[in-house]
Amino acid sequence: MQFELTREYIDNLKEIIEEQNEAKAIALMDELHPADIAEIYDELSVDEAKFLYLLLDGDTAADVLVELEDDDRDRFLKVLPVEVIAKKFIDKMDSDDAADVIGGLSDEQQEEILSHIDDIEQAGDIVDLLHYDEDTAGGLMGKELVMVNENWTVLTCLRELSRQAEDIDEIYYVYVVDDDGILKGTLSLKEMVLSSTSAKISNIYQPDAMSVHTDENDEEVARIMEKYDLVALPVIDSIGRLMGRITIDDVVDVIRDEAEKDYQMASGISEDVEANDSIWLQTRARLPWLLIGLVGGILAALVISTHEEELKLTTSLAFFIPLITAMAGNVGVQSSAIIVQGIASNSLGFESTFSRLLRELGGAFINGLTCSALLFLWNFFNEGDIALTMTVSIALFVVIIFAAIAGTIIPLMLHKAKVDPALATGPFITTLNDIVGLFIYLAIGGYFYSVL
Amino acid sequence: MQFELTREYIDNLKEIIEEQNEAKAIALMDELHPADIAEIYDELSVDEAKFLYLLLDGDTAADVLVELEDDDRDRFLKVLPVEVIAKKFIDKMDSDDAADVIGGLSDEQQEEILSHIDDIEQAGDIVDLLHYDEDTAGGLMGKELVMVNENWTVLTCLRELSRQAEDIDEIYYVYVVDDDGILKGTLSLKEMVLSSTSAKISNIYQPDAMSVHTDENDEEVARIMEKYDLVALPVIDSIGRLMGRITIDDVVDVIRDEAEKDYQMASGISEDVEANDSIWLQTRARLPWLLIGLVGGILAALVISTHEEELKLTTSLAFFIPLITAMAGNVGVQSSAIIVQGIASNSLGFESTFSRLLRELGGAFINGLTCSALLFLWNFFNEGDIALTMTVSIALFVVIIFAAIAGTIIPLMLHKAKVDPALATGPFITTLNDIVGLFIYLAIGGYFYSVL
Repeated sequence: MQFELTREYIDNLKEIIEEQNEAKAIALMDELHPADIAEIYDELSVDEAKFLYLLLDGDTAADVLVELEDDDRDRFLKVLPVEVIAKKFIDKMDSDDAADVIGGLSDEQQEEILSHIDDIEQAGDIVDLLHYDEDTAGGLMGKELVMVNENWTVLTCLRELSRQAEDIDEIYYVYVVDDDGILKGTLSLKEMVLSSTSAKISNIYQPDAMSVHTDENDEEVARIMEKYDLVALPVIDSIGRLMGRITIDDVVDVIRDEAEKDYQMASGISEDVEANDSIWLQTRARLPWLLIGLVGGILAALVISTHEEELKLTTSLAFFIPLITAMAGNVGVQSSAIIVQGIASNSLGFESTFSRLLRELGGAFINGLTCSALLFLWNFFNEGDIALTMTVSIALFVVIIFAAIAGTIIPLMLHKAKVDPALATGPFITTLNDIVGLFIYLAIGGYFYSVL
Repeated sequence: MQFELTREYIDNLKEIIEEQNEAKAIALMDELHPADIAEIYDELSVDEAKFLYLLLDGDTAADVLVELEDDDRDRFLKVLPVEVIAKKFIDKMDSDDAADVIGGLSDEQQEEILSHIDDIEQAGDIVDLLHYDEDTAGGLMGKELVMVNENWTVLTCLRELSRQAEDIDEIYYVYVVDDDGILKGTLSLKEMVLSSTSAKISNIYQPDAMSVHTDENDEEVARIMEKYDLVALPVIDSIGRLMGRITIDDVVDVIRDEAEKDYQMASGISEDVEANDSIWLQTRARLPWLLIGLVGGILAALVISTHEEELKLTTSLAFFIPLITAMAGNVGVQSSAIIVQGIASNSLGFESTFSRLLRELGGAFINGLTCSALLFLWNFFNEGDIALTMTVSIALFVVIIFAAIAGTIIPLMLHKAKVDPALATGPFITTLNDIVGLFIYLAIGGYFYSVL
């Protein structure tokens, strides 16, 4: 029932395209969902994709365009005539998808496409939507919804529904407004079907509808829809007029992007890149973090160089430098990941920073003690030098405690200062912990070698 | 319109509970959504929560129980009498939520609760659902759905709908089956509302409904619903009979969990822990990775100790150990994160491992050259020793190339071997790269000091 893309399938398709066999290509495309066709396009050259694309009927073509990855789509739109884009596709899309599709184009291209759209209402909706920031409720919402007046009866609603519903794929709720267009509440289709046709809407609708303002942040929209298990959420302007609605499929992308963004940040990747992006994009996203690491490494070299004399006398002090820095990094990353995820999923609650820190310290104490004890045993039986054995174990314990504190406090502080706490994870916190860890290690080493 | 939990609100509520002021507490709870009440419970002691809970009416109480975090819920169920749990809550829940709620209890507790449920159909549904693995389509699905026969008319359907619909909160689709209960297709409520009441279902339903088998993996279910923008997905058994349906809100959790799991793995956290979990849980999740890091650190010490003689002669070789290991770790984490995310979001496509590796090498070449050149300049002007300057820059370049290869190939190989590639990120790859990086650095150092 579901389509699975295989390499054989692609090879077969490429052959058909090379033969310019339109009948076979149409027959193949006919069985597929637009999302599957979009997946296939990712594997084809622009010219191959264009050949297939011009064979699709209008509705499917519009749906495929929506499903394409942003950069594939922009590349693709460049090879299609503006009039075709406007009349064949944009006209047939949901307003929010249309705004997304042309939002990536230049102002001139946008104007040219809009001037070719015959349906004035659709063009107006798109222009309205283009005004909103991409990452706000206004940027996520679509204009397609069924709006009914609170003073109507169910019968009037059903008539209005069949009039308004033609343009809309799925209807989950009908939105109830007053004479001024102010959102009053919602009415589920189920409720409408189960009520008598003469019932008045004002008597059967759900009055306290959850809604958001057009300028609400998209991550907050996702949080609300996820928390309250909503499939659609109405969007209102500052005086409460119904402006559009957001559906769950748009928000699923926001949720995935948000979770992936934190992971990418923690991995030292600063832009939203994917495995298939160009070398240049990937380099630009990664190099800044590597440079931070490079500066950190140079600072670490300076820290060690101040202890050159001790190192000359006891070279074995250098053996455990990687162990100390690696453990400092690992503990810091663990602690900060927990905080960053807690902030992202809004599950931190009201525990104070102090009590959170105490708990983190408790964990660090157990982990630090375990690791230090094991390391002590190893060195005690394998290393003759008691000063080194003491130094490494005690330093490891202190470093683990410090790294846990830094990993907990820094993201919390950034969050309070309204900076994305994910910035604090990955290379940044690793680098800081490396330097401080070395400092602690060498200081403790200096002490033990002077007294033992 | 939305509720925002503040510390003042909690303090106020705790006071009301202490006064045992039932009227005030009921008035406060009355304004809230069950998801909000569940959020409040996270901030209260079990006894405080119990006091509030027993004041709620049955439906709200059931909804709150569903919204609670798993561990809060299990703790909470322990303090409530089994009969209350069964009659007041489980009876009123959707079957999938009920199965989730009692799935966490012991077999004896489950049996006891089930024996107290009056509605035999509900008890049977729950027993059915408990058979499925939690992470399969069967474990995600609920039994609540509206099923109509393909031979009926719209009018019969509407009657059946009002009979079946009472137990169901939201209806997005009606499922069409044949006389044997085999799923034939779907009918949207919109379609039903817009059709004449005498129309035959077989003439208006959508025949090629997307569906999954009960034993389909939950991440695959999420992928399908996300790709095809579905709000509900029917689940069938091996001969095609309709067994249940999965709604998008259950899948949103799977998507978030999956993305978070990769991030946690990459951060060296092996179990699904949250910021508010106990010290013991957090320690258990983290210690294994720290022990890997510890063993790696000891191996690194052994690698360095084999170069003790060189280090004695040229102590400054030790200065750049942290730089080499940090950069090896950062590059490895970056490369593997890109691959792991590509695998998770299914966006890798059919590019061969070889061409993917070539691209990664291209990026590593640019990044390695940039970092090595900058480091060379720094050392050239700040460090008198030309052998050290050459060693550090060349080693850094080689190490970055190696780390990019390891970071790309290891997760791809694990994925082919059906092991979760996220295992390869974080501490594991960092540790490997540390050791190999040091090996490369010291070997190159040994060469330059012997020839220069």
